[in-house]
Amino acid sequence: MVIALNEPLDRHLHLRDEKMLEIGAPLSAETFSGALVMPNLVPPVTTQEAVVAYRERILGCAKNSSFTPYMTLFFRSDYTPQFLESVKEDILAIKLYPAGVTTNSDGGVEGFDLIELAPVLEAMSELQIPLCVHGETGGFVMDRESEFIPIYEKLAKNFPDLKIVMEHITTKDAVEALDRYENLYATITLHHLYITLDDVAGGLLQPHLFCKPIAKRPEDRAALLQAALKAHPKVMFGSDSAPHPREAKEAPGCAAGVFTAPIALQALAQLFDKHGALDNLQRFVSDNAKNIYSINPPKKEVVLEKTAYLVPEMYGGSVVPMFAGGTLEWRVVSAG
Amino acid sequence: MVIALNEPLDRHLHLRDEKMLEIGAPLSAETFSGALVMPNLVPPVTTQEAVVAYRERILGCAKNSSFTPYMTLFFRSDYTPQFLESVKEDILAIKLYPAGVTTNSDGGVEGFDLIELAPVLEAMSELQIPLCVHGETGGFVMDRESEFIPIYEKLAKNFPDLKIVMEHITTKDAVEALDRYENLYATITLHHLYITLDDVAGGLLQPHLFCKPIAKRPEDRAALLQAALKAHPKVMFGSDSAPHPREAKEAPGCAAGVFTAPIALQALAQLFDKHGALDNLQRFVSDNAKNIYSINPPKKEVVLEKTAYLVPEMYGGSVVPMFAGGTLEWRVVSAG
Repeated sequence: MVIALNEPLDRHLHLRDEKMLEIGAPLSAETFSGALVMPNLVPPVTTQEAVVAYRERILGCAKNSSFTPYMTLFFRSDYTPQFLESVKEDILAIKLYPAGVTTNSDGGVEGFDLIELAPVLEAMSELQIPLCVHGETGGFVMDRESEFIPIYEKLAKNFPDLKIVMEHITTKDAVEALDRYENLYATITLHHLYITLDDVAGGLLQPHLFCKPIAKRPEDRAALLQAALKAHPKVMFGSDSAPHPREAKEAPGCAAGVFTAPIALQALAQLFDKHGALDNLQRFVSDNAKNIYSINPPKKEVVLEKTAYLVPEMYGGSVVPMFAGGTLEWRVVSAG
Repeated sequence: MVIALNEPLDRHLHLRDEKMLEIGAPLSAETFSGALVMPNLVPPVTTQEAVVAYRERILGCAKNSSFTPYMTLFFRSDYTPQFLESVKEDILAIKLYPAGVTTNSDGGVEGFDLIELAPVLEAMSELQIPLCVHGETGGFVMDRESEFIPIYEKLAKNFPDLKIVMEHITTKDAVEALDRYENLYATITLHHLYITLDDVAGGLLQPHLFCKPIAKRPEDRAALLQAALKAHPKVMFGSDSAPHPREAKEAPGCAAGVFTAPIALQALAQLFDKHGALDNLQRFVSDNAKNIYSINPPKKEVVLEKTAYLVPEMYGGSVVPMFAGGTLEWRVVSAG
C-alpha cells in the first residue's frame, strides 16, 4: 500500500539553534515542504534582524531548497503597529507564550490584561498576522490547558478578525472550544495522538515522552484523535518536535519535549491507516494549513509505503526520537 | 524548639535485599523503633522460611538492637489455614498486590474474585492477621486508586472482622472511604503529604519524586494532609520509602519509589510544626499504629530540634533521598 502526500507541512516546530539546529533542520527539510518555526530561542526572536538571521541559519543547515521555514516572532505587548507592518513580510505568525510555562518562555506575557495586549492584537488583526498561542495557565499540570480556554474565548470574542491558533492542544475541552468561535484554530502533535499520561508515568517513567503540555487523559486523546482523523478543517498537524541532547532528557530535571519530526509522517500514516482514515491525511498534514494560513508552499511530493521501518535509536549521535529503536509500519520511499 | 517522639514506627517500608538492604536497614533502624517490611522481593516472600531468613538478613544489616522489623507475607490465594496458623507468629500482616501494579508485583492477585480470595481472607480474619493492600487498578494512572475504592469496600463489607489497611493512600476518595467502614485503615507516606503531580511533572521532570501510586491533585494532597495533621485514629505513618540505585532512577524506564526513611521524621516534624500540629505527630508516627496493630515495640526515644539540617545528596554512595542537598528545618538530636 502506498500514499503520496503533497506539500506536507509542520505547523509547529522547534529547531532551536547551533548543534540542535544542525541535527533537526535537515531532517524536517527532508520530508516536509515547510514548517512554522517557533521563536523561543535564548534570547527570543523579537526583532526583524533576528527573524531574518534565524531564517538564514535554518536555510544554511537545512540544505534543501524545497523546504520553507515560515518564521514567527515572539509576542511582546510593546510592539508598535509600525514595527509589525515592517516585519510582516518576514513572518507568518506571532507566537504568544504566557511567562514561564515552557522552555525559554520567561520573557512571555504575564497575566492576560486585554487592555495591555489590545494594541498589538488590533494591529495584528488589521495586518492579518495570525496569533499562535501556547495556551496554559500556571495551574495544576493536568488542568493548565482547560483553565486557559476562557482566555482563548476572551481573545476570540474581542478580536473576531484575528486568527488565533491554539497550539499543540491536548484536551477534549480545547477540541470543543474550536467550534464555538469562528476564528479559533488548532494544531495537534503526533505524540498527543499516540500517548496519554499513562505512557509517560503510568508504568516506568519515560522522560523521552515528557512534554509540555503534558499528555492528558484517555478521553482527551480520543477527542484529539477524532478531530485529526476526520481532518477537522480548523485543525492542522504541528509536531511541536523539540530536540534535546540525550543527556538533558535522561537526567533529573529532564527537559520537556518529544523529538518526532523525522518519523512524524510515517507514524501519522500508520495511525490514519489503522483507523481507516488515510484519505484524510493530506488535509491534516497540508491542505488545512494552506487554507488557514493562505500559503502556497513549493511543490513537494512525499511517498510513503506500508513497509516496516526501524526507527533509529538516535539522530546526530545525540537526539532520541519517539519510537526510538521501535518499528513503524510505514516508511518514506521518496521525497522531492 | 524540641520534640521527643516515643517509638516512631514506619508502617510501610521497602528494605529490598543485598546492597539496598545494607544501605537502608541501618538508616531506618537508627530513627525508627520498628517498621512493617514489605515482601515484594524477587521471588516474593511466601513461605515461613523466607520470612524468617529475610528477618535475619534485616537484623544482620540493621545492627541496632532497638529496631524491630515487623514482617509481612506476600498474599497468595492458595495459602491454607494451617499454613497461616503456623506462620502467624513470624508475621504481623499479609500484603496483597494486584498483579503488575508496582515493583515486583507480578505474582500478585489477578482480578478480585471474592470467592477465590475468601478462604484465605476468612482464615486471616479468624487468626486476626491484618490485610495490607496496594489498592490500585490497572486503569488510567490518575484514577487507579479511586477505581480501587469499590474493591476496598467489597472487602470491608464481606470480611467485617478483618483489619484492612489501605496502603500509601493518595486521594481524597480514599480518605473519605476510611470513615465509611470500621475495619478500613490507612497509611500515608511522607512524600504524598508534600507533593502533587506538579512536583513530579509540572515543571521539569523529577524522577526522584516518581512513585506508585503517583502523586495526585492538590485537593487530594490537602485531604491527606488534613487526615495526617489531626492524626486521624485510623491513619498511620508508612513511608513507602524505597531505595533504588541512582542509575535506576535517572534513566529512561525510571523505577518507581522515593527514598525518605532517613529524613522522614525530620520532614514530618517540619510539616507538623508548620501547620501548628506538632502535638499530633506522636499519634501519627506511633500511637495509632500501636493501637491498630496491637503491638508494643521496644522503648526508643527520638529527640528532634528545630535546627537547620542539610540533607545528604546520597546515602551509601548510591541512593538519592527526597530533599537531597536541600535543607530541612528540623534535625534528629538523639535516638535510643
